[in-house]
Amino acid sequence: MKVTVIGDGGWGTALAMVLDRNGHEVTVWGPFESYVDEMRIFKENVNYLPGVKLPDSIHWTSCHENAVDEAELVVIVVPSRYYKDTVEAFKPYLPESALVISATKGLDEKTYERMSEVAEKILERDVAVLSGPSHAEEVARGVPCAVAIAAKDHAVAEQIQELFVNDTFRVYTLDDVIGVELGGALKNVVAVAAGISDGLGFGDNTKAALMTRGIAEITRLGTALGAKPETFMGLSGIGDLMVTCMSQHSRNRGVGERLGKGETLEDIMGSMKMVAEGVWNCQAAAELAAEKNVPVPITDQVNAVVHEGRDPREAVVALMGRAPKAESE
Amino acid sequence: MKVTVIGDGGWGTALAMVLDRNGHEVTVWGPFESYVDEMRIFKENVNYLPGVKLPDSIHWTSCHENAVDEAELVVIVVPSRYYKDTVEAFKPYLPESALVISATKGLDEKTYERMSEVAEKILERDVAVLSGPSHAEEVARGVPCAVAIAAKDHAVAEQIQELFVNDTFRVYTLDDVIGVELGGALKNVVAVAAGISDGLGFGDNTKAALMTRGIAEITRLGTALGAKPETFMGLSGIGDLMVTCMSQHSRNRGVGERLGKGETLEDIMGSMKMVAEGVWNCQAAAELAAEKNVPVPITDQVNAVVHEGRDPREAVVALMGRAPKAESE
Repeated sequence: MKVTVIGDGGWGTALAMVLDRNGHEVTVWGPFESYVDEMRIFKENVNYLPGVKLPDSIHWTSCHENAVDEAELVVIVVPSRYYKDTVEAFKPYLPESALVISATKGLDEKTYERMSEVAEKILERDVAVLSGPSHAEEVARGVPCAVAIAAKDHAVAEQIQELFVNDTFRVYTLDDVIGVELGGALKNVVAVAAGISDGLGFGDNTKAALMTRGIAEITRLGTALGAKPETFMGLSGIGDLMVTCMSQHSRNRGVGERLGKGETLEDIMGSMKMVAEGVWNCQAAAELAAEKNVPVPITDQVNAVVHEGRDPREAVVALMGRAPKAESE
Repeated sequence: MKVTVIGDGGWGTALAMVLDRNGHEVTVWGPFESYVDEMRIFKENVNYLPGVKLPDSIHWTSCHENAVDEAELVVIVVPSRYYKDTVEAFKPYLPESALVISATKGLDEKTYERMSEVAEKILERDVAVLSGPSHAEEVARGVPCAVAIAAKDHAVAEQIQELFVNDTFRVYTLDDVIGVELGGALKNVVAVAAGISDGLGFGDNTKAALMTRGIAEITRLGTALGAKPETFMGLSGIGDLMVTCMSQHSRNRGVGERLGKGETLEDIMGSMKMVAEGVWNCQAAAELAAEKNVPVPITDQVNAVVHEGRDPREAVVALMGRAPKAESE
């Protein structure tokens, strides 16, 4: 099948490699011509997937029109901040029959919409979602992993599953698009909190307590936004949360860790090539929660540390030190 | 209050330190007189909590009768293998009015009963349960953590909560004794699987997929055994699972890691001072699941590796390589 991956970050490149291994004809689009040329020539994505040899069979382009010419499957995986503009730029060229999947984990900064909502409005068609616990570095190296695909139409989810699945890349299908997408977006905020705890030198117990109360918080907010609560118990919920909070690879956890150690957000963001969606999304999550009257203490504290200069230690102590109560409260 | 901790392992000692900090009069019972004397004199639990200075105010004894004399609260925290005999030995001396809590995470090897069931039968009174994500080493050092207390009578749970809670030891109450106790017992089996994955050199993605499917498996089996499914989403379920699977401190994960690296169970158990409950409990869990007709693929594979000499790599590949399907199946 002719497949286009829109986005040449680590995750886009890793997904392109999975699809290439499965025998599809894969094109990756990136925004910068010179960087795309470099990948084509040197077979390495130096900034976002360093050290991984890229296969010769993947095509690289920065031309919107050429990228999606005759595409049967399109995977959108650009950072949330550039998502809307990128999808709009592709709209005139996208074949009408192409299946579209969104694999970006985040929320629109201005409208707080989910990424597939943004894409559906612009492209005027159903958009499926791929999410789950999956570091690009490990997927690119063929380390076994499992992800979730959600589509409103179950037959579409199964069709996409067939295209991605192989011995080391397991794909499970769901129909809860909202839940799968919110799990991927909201876990980044909890990961920042987990990183802050790490940076302050707190232990596994503290982090596990934060993560457990984090998934409860995500489930509360997600359910209020239309998701099924059970989705958050699966790969795209706790699965992804666990990987993000425990891994050295995680950028969101990493930003939290540096905040916990006392660096300023400005310094941290200035030194990062990659994107930490949790930093952008904590405000969106806090505002959505306020609209729906859902208590989100972890999100509120992350937001205060990131955007209001709150002392990280005070934030964690405030979370751990709340009055004793029943767990279900 | 006069409190007795039955069991001088790492967790028993850490809980004694929490209760001591809260101003209670604490006695710890251990089975070996010479070892107990050593702790009393040198103020260190060298085998099970090395490097932690024990407070002068804790009493140490190996005498059953003296240990529980006038005790108002008794915390049982001996390894599951010695649990029944220990409780039976204490029965004649236990004050009738004493509150009893069980903090051992495991199942009876022969009857597959939960620990509080064993204690309730012998002592003929209600027994509450304390469980959750909590490494003894971190609790002893005052690193913030949160645990769950479950009792059939909510007033009892709240009373126990009051005794344990302080600034760094958060206690949440539940009424689902079965769920809290099974979460603590069954997570050890999943932790062995997670360790095997680590030992084989698989990545975070693989482990997160195992953990996610592990909590689903625990929830299925636990619900069939009378627990409330939502309990497994809390501290004593996923919270504890996460700590156990991701921590370098975890003995169960550590045993799995060594199995994954090719060591034999005999060698591993021979070299450990501490107890890895998951190795004892995987058979009990597998048998309970078979009785209830609940599919437990992870437990079955751990059982096969531990007790039937199955190759660890084949076990993990079998788990990751099952046919693609819907996540809810």
